[in-house]
Amino acid sequence: CSDPQEFSNTNVRWRLPAVCFVWQLSMIILFGVFVRYNEESDTHWVDYRKGNNITSDIENDFYFRYPSFQDVHVMIFVGFGFLMTFLKRYSFGAVGFNFLIAAFGIQWALLMQGWFHSLDYTDGKIKIGVENLINADFCVAGCLIAYGAVLGKVSPVQLLVMTLFGITLFAVEEYIILNVLHAKDAGGSMVIHTFGAYYGLSISWVLYRPNLDKSKHLNGSVYHSDVFAMIGTLFLWMFWPSFNSAIADHGDGQHRAAINTYLALASTVLTTVAISSLFEKTGKLDMVHIQNSTLAGGVAVGTAAEFMLSPYGSLIVGFFCGIISTMGYIHFSPFLEEKLKIQDTCGIHNLHAMPGVIGGIVGAIAATAATNTVYGDLGLENTFDFTGPFAKRVPTIQGGYQAAGLCVALCFAIGGGIFVGLVLKLPIWGDPADENCFDDEIYWEVRQFLLTHVSTGIKH
Amino acid sequence: CSDPQEFSNTNVRWRLPAVCFVWQLSMIILFGVFVRYNEESDTHWVDYRKGNNITSDIENDFYFRYPSFQDVHVMIFVGFGFLMTFLKRYSFGAVGFNFLIAAFGIQWALLMQGWFHSLDYTDGKIKIGVENLINADFCVAGCLIAYGAVLGKVSPVQLLVMTLFGITLFAVEEYIILNVLHAKDAGGSMVIHTFGAYYGLSISWVLYRPNLDKSKHLNGSVYHSDVFAMIGTLFLWMFWPSFNSAIADHGDGQHRAAINTYLALASTVLTTVAISSLFEKTGKLDMVHIQNSTLAGGVAVGTAAEFMLSPYGSLIVGFFCGIISTMGYIHFSPFLEEKLKIQDTCGIHNLHAMPGVIGGIVGAIAATAATNTVYGDLGLENTFDFTGPFAKRVPTIQGGYQAAGLCVALCFAIGGGIFVGLVLKLPIWGDPADENCFDDEIYWEVRQFLLTHVSTGIKH
Amino acid sequence: CSDPQEFSNTNVRWRLPAVCFVWQLSMIILFGVFVRYNEESDTHWVDYRKGNNITSDIENDFYFRYPSFQDVHVMIFVGFGFLMTFLKRYSFGAVGFNFLIAAFGIQWALLMQGWFHSLDYTDGKIKIGVENLINADFCVAGCLIAYGAVLGKVSPVQLLVMTLFGITLFAVEEYIILNVLHAKDAGGSMVIHTFGAYYGLSISWVLYRPNLDKSKHLNGSVYHSDVFAMIGTLFLWMFWPSFNSAIADHGDGQHRAAINTYLALASTVLTTVAISSLFEKTGKLDMVHIQNSTLAGGVAVGTAAEFMLSPYGSLIVGFFCGIISTMGYIHFSPFLEEKLKIQDTCGIHNLHAMPGVIGGIVGAIAATAATNTVYGDLGLENTFDFTGPFAKRVPTIQGGYQAAGLCVALCFAIGGGIFVGLVLKLPIWGDPADENCFDDEIYWEVRQFLLTHVSTGIKH
Repeated sequence: CSDPQEFSNTNVRWRLPAVCFVWQLSMIILFGVFVRYNEESDTHWVDYRKGNNITSDIENDFYFRYPSFQDVHVMIFVGFGFLMTFLKRYSFGAVGFNFLIAAFGIQWALLMQGWFHSLDYTDGKIKIGVENLINADFCVAGCLIAYGAVLGKVSPVQLLVMTLFGITLFAVEEYIILNVLHAKDAGGSMVIHTFGAYYGLSISWVLYRPNLDKSKHLNGSVYHSDVFAMIGTLFLWMFWPSFNSAIADHGDGQHRAAINTYLALASTVLTTVAISSLFEKTGKLDMVHIQNSTLAGGVAVGTAAEFMLSPYGSLIVGFFCGIISTMGYIHFSPFLEEKLKIQDTCGIHNLHAMPGVIGGIVGAIAATAATNTVYGDLGLENTFDFTGPFAKRVPTIQGGYQAAGLCVALCFAIGGGIFVGLVLKLPIWGDPADENCFDDEIYWEVRQFLLTHVSTGIKH
Repeated sequence: CSDPQEFSNTNVRWRLPAVCFVWQLSMIILFGVFVRYNEESDTHWVDYRKGNNITSDIENDFYFRYPSFQDVHVMIFVGFGFLMTFLKRYSFGAVGFNFLIAAFGIQWALLMQGWFHSLDYTDGKIKIGVENLINADFCVAGCLIAYGAVLGKVSPVQLLVMTLFGITLFAVEEYIILNVLHAKDAGGSMVIHTFGAYYGLSISWVLYRPNLDKSKHLNGSVYHSDVFAMIGTLFLWMFWPSFNSAIADHGDGQHRAAINTYLALASTVLTTVAISSLFEKTGKLDMVHIQNSTLAGGVAVGTAAEFMLSPYGSLIVGFFCGIISTMGYIHFSPFLEEKLKIQDTCGIHNLHAMPGVIGGIVGAIAATAATNTVYGDLGLENTFDFTGPFAKRVPTIQGGYQAAGLCVALCFAIGGGIFVGLVLKLPIWGDPADENCFDDEIYWEVRQFLLTHVSTGIKH
Repeated sequence: CSDPQEFSNTNVRWRLPAVCFVWQLSMIILFGVFVRYNEESDTHWVDYRKGNNITSDIENDFYFRYPSFQDVHVMIFVGFGFLMTFLKRYSFGAVGFNFLIAAFGIQWALLMQGWFHSLDYTDGKIKIGVENLINADFCVAGCLIAYGAVLGKVSPVQLLVMTLFGITLFAVEEYIILNVLHAKDAGGSMVIHTFGAYYGLSISWVLYRPNLDKSKHLNGSVYHSDVFAMIGTLFLWMFWPSFNSAIADHGDGQHRAAINTYLALASTVLTTVAISSLFEKTGKLDMVHIQNSTLAGGVAVGTAAEFMLSPYGSLIVGFFCGIISTMGYIHFSPFLEEKLKIQDTCGIHNLHAMPGVIGGIVGAIAATAATNTVYGDLGLENTFDFTGPFAKRVPTIQGGYQAAGLCVALCFAIGGGIFVGLVLKLPIWGDPADENCFDDEIYWEVRQFLLTHVSTGIKH
């Protein structure tokens, strides 16, 4: 798709509206057939309360999870959206397409995850509550991570297709990891970050553009676009404790997950700054590192967030991830592009892929090392849900299943990504020519770029 | 006021400080006479708890509503404020005057709403708690919506006058709708959006400026001002579930309102994108639509948010509102301006007026259609508060009162707006001349517009 | 350090990474030795619950404080960070160095405050939970306030040194004020604001630069940098009720603190606008005042936030602080710089120092005036913790201790600040020359300042 005259018709006039309408109508029909309120969001809650001796409305799951849900919601729409506004002339596409695919993705995720996790077999309906909303946001996060790899190089129609398949793959992968293998992954290091990142990188590999340097002059930031991106960075960083604790166990589970994440992220900031300064000749800092690598600790502490990782354990995880992620931007990203032919606009390999895999490994080790002495008998059972068919599982075995979960995430991501990449290579999606990448003017009405001074003189 | 030499003295030096000081002093005196803490925010709470067998501090209303309150607070100050920063040279006025009128409005609203809803007849005092803070924010939202219609064309003194009257009218209208008619309106489709929008549009109609095209070159956006506006859009969009659930019933009421709003908003995004792309010759998207119409679903699901609208019902509401709102920007706004002489800077007719009316109608239909089968006996009673003097009301009758509520909102808005418009037409308020509209330099010290490069060369 | 050839080597290549690495490693070791989860964030919570007859997980302190914690977290990282982005070419330094020192500070604060407040004497470990996270954020706030005075004039290494000492001094001062004197300071008017502000001003006094006007052309804002700063202002303003209520007593304490802060801040906005307009010849508003002085009411109501200040009392506090703070920017800041040789980049004397002292005084008066009639017997005991060794203290005595607390904060701030200033004067920290102050290009890779239009023409 390098010749604009022949292949690149970026006019998405009929394709984009058609996809949006048809898919949204399908959502309405499927929701009509399948989705209902669960017992905590239904007017029968008052009867349910009495039937279950629940003394107060405050024990509705809403009050345990809604504040965390809203924080996660901000991460998805403002966090991811603004993090990607760093490009000098693709800020509309960053925040606007992020908005579009997330809004579609959460609906499709409610269905896909609902069929696997919230299906009421008595009436064949998916029953939803606040936890489903959080999980839908999580599911979308995987696709938004993937968007980071292809930012500026695909059309909104391609993004919607990528999201449709991404959510579907995610739901299956998640079911296998969490339910079949019974692995734990509160913050989604494996399920969300590893999957999302390798899914996006595989797509980007298939869509490799050898002549991308034709739009090289737009593949960079300008002063204020970097400040906009820091809005995304900070909302991700600040609310990450909510992300990792949002669906953790009530009580100590959510409490501990928040503490571990808070600490891991703090540690990451210092090593990111250290490496960024160390590898620049004059010791200057690079905004790319500050915007991205400071978040790696949150990714890597995801799986083990709920475990008794201990506060210093969280600091250690953050310490190494800041180093690895920043080194990735300096050394590994150029290698990826030149040798492996993977063009990764936002550097998701450094922010999500490597830290995600580390997170999976940390989780496996932490599970293996869990003991009754540290956790308490009841604590161990609660934390790892060693109940029902898994009542006889022990921590060392659990560690193995955790590792297996990581492999499942990788397989689904790479296999699925290559397949979806091939679909997206079809010359029907309105993607931009090589010389028009990273340019909002292809898909957006842009009225005026510069704040020029019209009527009066510039004051100094 | 079209001749700057004769009528337009935009020097507000004495008028603005005088209004601020006198009104703030009045607030202090009125609060001193009337406002006290309620039993949940008073130190006697510990006694109240014992007297009412409340087992834990967590059952203080603060913990049910404070997270939602903070989200609403963000919508009022950052949401509305930044949404209006889209104009290339009126960002200070957008976010700054929004700040000013909201800060005044919440105080006056605590008094006005307090007299109607929270007056303790035993001692003649208004007793306030977190729910009053939320309601004050809601009340101000109506005035901020109205500000959207006159953005850039009025002085801060006019805005304060508009807010004083707006809050007063709101409190009366709200009392009639919620208490006299006993209509339900959790998210304020009628009480807030319909009222606020038609109030602002009526004012704008009275203040019609035939020569406004003299400042046409400033009535538009620049690249980064559109990105700033997206901050407002997204915080409104993300926190709208909190808006619609903030004062809903404890337990399932808040839970369900959040779910319905989440879904309606997701659906709206897709149809907004579809229509925006469809009506532009080359299929490009327009930032105006993405910034505004994506929110229409939240407005329209407001009244029925607490009802058993069901998840697909919410999607349907969002679906149509995205279409109608975007079509409104494309076709109806020019008609409003040319034929009806209503200049609507932010297009509040498309974002708040039409979706608000739709929301009122949806609420009336949903109330009429409510059945004991779907809601349960107790659920129906709780949801519609069929207690006390309204114990014998049935859903079909409730539907009629809902519709009557919508009419009340419209009457107060249009009647009040015309009256306030006439007051604001007096040539004493320091409003800008036609050629100075949409320009921050009239009311703000602006030091420098462009980020010029002073000491070193621009690096590429 | 005024001659760049001789003294100013701003290359921090080895110093910054070394400090970051060594300090972060020290944190890991100290956390390993000292820090563990408390009983509410440990897996033994399930046993603790049973042992203490706690009926539901919702009574875990996490659910009382986590929403407020997240709001405080936003204030620290986005609030303070973006408030300081107002300089035209120091936005990276504002938001980036704020991020760095806060991330280090919260770790060191968990240790320092832990030793004083959360040490479990049975095993010598610091036991942390959500309240510790909030307190660590509070502790860092003091250092970020101090950063405001030296913004643009110091190196990141100096900032880290300033933070190390600042946190240490804070923890001791806080221990003396809250534990030894048993003063109350829910929102930290004395402990955080008075201390932080005079600490920063003392440092700035020692580091006085007589030739700072060499970089005068950069010591100001540009249009969009002022809009960025409003993001900081608004998130501070909106979430201040959470700041002042975050560690207040469960139930009515948190509830009342939020209400008092909400009202004080609203009042401040009006008087800030009034004074800003009044003292400008043409009645225009100054963004500096709107960005800063509107927050003074939140500072000043900090100590008394939890007390029965009553709603009108809060309005009065806000009323006067808006006036004093804005007058400070107009009249007192120039005096400070010219006569007292204190260069205060952000005007923290007006935003934190004066309002902080006022807050301490208001707190002392409110405590002195407390009566059993107003508070109730149990309410008085709970609010002032007149228990244990302080069971016999009465309000009038408490007022005296409150005033003593204010003096302790001032002494630690000024004494500590002068000492740290002298340390920072050593010519080893890589601080910028006078002509390079307020310039990001010293410490950051800046790719391109202006959004120039590269491939197509500017559209009008």
